[in-house]
Amino acid sequence: MKIKVLKDILGANDQRAKENHSLLRGKNVVSMNITASPGAGKTSLITRTIDRLGDKIRFGVVEGDISSSIDAEAIGNRDIPVVQINTGGTCHLDANMVANALGSLPLDKIDFLIIENVGNLICPASFSLGEDKNVLVASIPEGHDKPHKYPVMFSQADLVVLNKIDLLPYVDFDMEEFERKVADLNSKANILQISCKTGEGLEEWFSWMTDQSTSLQQSS
Amino acid sequence: MKIKVLKDILGANDQRAKENHSLLRGKNVVSMNITASPGAGKTSLITRTIDRLGDKIRFGVVEGDISSSIDAEAIGNRDIPVVQINTGGTCHLDANMVANALGSLPLDKIDFLIIENVGNLICPASFSLGEDKNVLVASIPEGHDKPHKYPVMFSQADLVVLNKIDLLPYVDFDMEEFERKVADLNSKANILQISCKTGEGLEEWFSWMTDQSTSLQQSS
Repeated sequence: MKIKVLKDILGANDQRAKENHSLLRGKNVVSMNITASPGAGKTSLITRTIDRLGDKIRFGVVEGDISSSIDAEAIGNRDIPVVQINTGGTCHLDANMVANALGSLPLDKIDFLIIENVGNLICPASFSLGEDKNVLVASIPEGHDKPHKYPVMFSQADLVVLNKIDLLPYVDFDMEEFERKVADLNSKANILQISCKTGEGLEEWFSWMTDQSTSLQQSS
Repeated sequence: MKIKVLKDILGANDQRAKENHSLLRGKNVVSMNITASPGAGKTSLITRTIDRLGDKIRFGVVEGDISSSIDAEAIGNRDIPVVQINTGGTCHLDANMVANALGSLPLDKIDFLIIENVGNLICPASFSLGEDKNVLVASIPEGHDKPHKYPVMFSQADLVVLNKIDLLPYVDFDMEEFERKVADLNSKANILQISCKTGEGLEEWFSWMTDQSTSLQQSS
């Protein structure tokens, strides 16, 4: 019996990611992969976005979690298409999981697909899902040293959203150091300072989302 | 050529973890694996502990990070033995990495070895390091739903340390829900509410550490 050894797992993932991307572009669906630490505020950002832009943009959501479905339930209440992926312990989404989810979504009725990755600042960086844009959500209480400690994730983001700025008065956070380190790692990514709790900075985020939706849909 | 397929990676890790444990117990070293999300406050907790108990307990530290050494530097300033493990992208420590680190530590001069795992609430749960005790550090701004979303990590802890309680007035955190979910998952683990910033609750933590040191050293 010949044993086949899969040497290029990441290569296989990239191939599947390309297929996802082709499928989504063919359906004129803009896609975004949102990554973050546990508790940085991905789900809050998504629900705020749907509540604000949902009458202009037809959203769909893929929710990645290791076992629960509480985030999908929070979003499902908003009457938009949601698919929950439970990774069963795996610490990141991969392109194949997302390919399966795409098969369950009404892509003809979606303009913008938001994929919420598993809360983890390490492994999601190694697995492209086929997304157009990669958004990393960081948060003030995690500390300004996170770009230094998780450089690959920060280097790959198209945009860094820095959430929970309402906590700045209560936390030791060196904004200049954070900005400097992000700039060192990543020449393209802007940093948007926001608070999903108070709403501060969210208008700029909504503009960015609207711009992505418009420009990418026109380009396909 | 015969190709050997490693089927039982976790079994191999467990074997190595047992060897670490035997080595440490043989040297009368108590060991603790500290896990948490990125930014929950593991390093702050360790430095506060060394500063307070360092004249009674001879500490050693193993620092796990994917690439940087800033945490080891913070601890190294305190003149105790520290070994930095850079996992090179791997999202958790494993028993073999720790075995290598043990070879670089003066175990005859250490009473209590603190192993700071990589910031990640998922994969460290699958890799025993050979530790006596497993401490999970959670933090208020991460939200009360973390036990629900990362159940395996919470189910394995011997103690849950809930840090940053100074932020309770500024964050929506349902303490009863958090406590209920931890109790559902884990019948043995107490929850210690602390703030490394204000010092609140730390005396109880220091007592717990001292108890572990005393009782485990006597039992060996």
